[in-house]
Amino acid sequence: MKKVIFALLLFFGLSNALFAHDGPVSEGVVVQANGNDAADFKRALILASNMHEVLTKAKFEIVVYGPSVKLLTAFSNEVPLIQKVQSEGIKVIACGRSLKSEHLKDSDLAPNITVVPFGAVHIVNRQKQGWQYIKP
Amino acid sequence: MKKVIFALLLFFGLSNALFAHDGPVSEGVVVQANGNDAADFKRALILASNMHEVLTKAKFEIVVYGPSVKLLTAFSNEVPLIQKVQSEGIKVIACGRSLKSEHLKDSDLAPNITVVPFGAVHIVNRQKQGWQYIKP
Amino acid sequence: MKKVIFALLLFFGLSNALFAHDGPVSEGVVVQANGNDAADFKRALILASNMHEVLTKAKFEIVVYGPSVKLLTAFSNEVPLIQKVQSEGIKVIACGRSLKSEHLKDSDLAPNITVVPFGAVHIVNRQKQGWQYIKP
Repeated sequence: MKKVIFALLLFFGLSNALFAHDGPVSEGVVVQANGNDAADFKRALILASNMHEVLTKAKFEIVVYGPSVKLLTAFSNEVPLIQKVQSEGIKVIACGRSLKSEHLKDSDLAPNITVVPFGAVHIVNRQKQGWQYIKP
Repeated sequence: MKKVIFALLLFFGLSNALFAHDGPVSEGVVVQANGNDAADFKRALILASNMHEVLTKAKFEIVVYGPSVKLLTAFSNEVPLIQKVQSEGIKVIACGRSLKSEHLKDSDLAPNITVVPFGAVHIVNRQKQGWQYIKP
Repeated sequence: MKKVIFALLLFFGLSNALFAHDGPVSEGVVVQANGNDAADFKRALILASNMHEVLTKAKFEIVVYGPSVKLLTAFSNEVPLIQKVQSEGIKVIACGRSLKSEHLKDSDLAPNITVVPFGAVHIVNRQKQGWQYIKP
């Protein structure tokens, strides 16, 4: 009987995981930052920071793609704000494809910025893992 | 044997609820309204109204945040449209933080507008409850 | 005992399906294309094409609604790009309501464009089926 129960536990545990999700589930919010200008970029970072203050248990990632990745360089005026949100535990992520389009290298970026191969694919993958998505 | 079955029911019921969702599941659509101007605001309300006509079983909420909350006051030109969508059963929600930023009080708002502490957090929470999200 | 296990399998299988989803689950990404101009439209199509290159197993649909549906006609400058993404297996979808607003008929459209009654409702329904949503 114990074996049967164990088998059932395993079965439903696995089927649940496979059925509802494609990867491990973690609680998180992915914020899309692909606005037109620095004002849009700032708004996205401040929104993420404020949301994180309330949703303290959730992981937060800001995915920057499009021309806005230029605002992530070491000499950007936005470095203080980037460092502020990073210090709060929010991950700032740059799209590798957008960096290439803007002729930027990973080494041009401000410290502790994560580069993913493709920002929009990262956003979709996070959703598949059960994260919430917001485009401010 | 009955106890075993009961325990299994309880276990899977709970694990399912905990694993896949953070709250009770209800069917609904949350429409983000944080556009640049009154035209964007109107478009969001009309879209929600039209969608609700088709998706009759779903709850609908329009979450207004950013400077657009100014369009929710009792003296706004948009009051007739707000009242129309409200009469259809759509909830119009104002972001409390945005109201504060715009130096507005709850009592400045048109009738029957719900104020939530933080609009973007509300959007994320609805998604966690299984609602669909659209930014028009 | 076998009957009990079978009953449990059935129960949890069904409850899982009913609880977590409203329809059959398929892997897919729905890309919203309701931008302001042809540049926004192109960006959405190119993004979908690039994402599809990486997420080879996922179905992709681009839902065009609002005035942008004018870019889907047989005489549109965007026909070559539309045909390119279609040849990659991406479905290009026009919102029937938007077509009507723009005084366009299905027969005005470029070949192989699918018309749905209501683009935004289609986006919401795909999310309910477990698809990921992105507004570029």
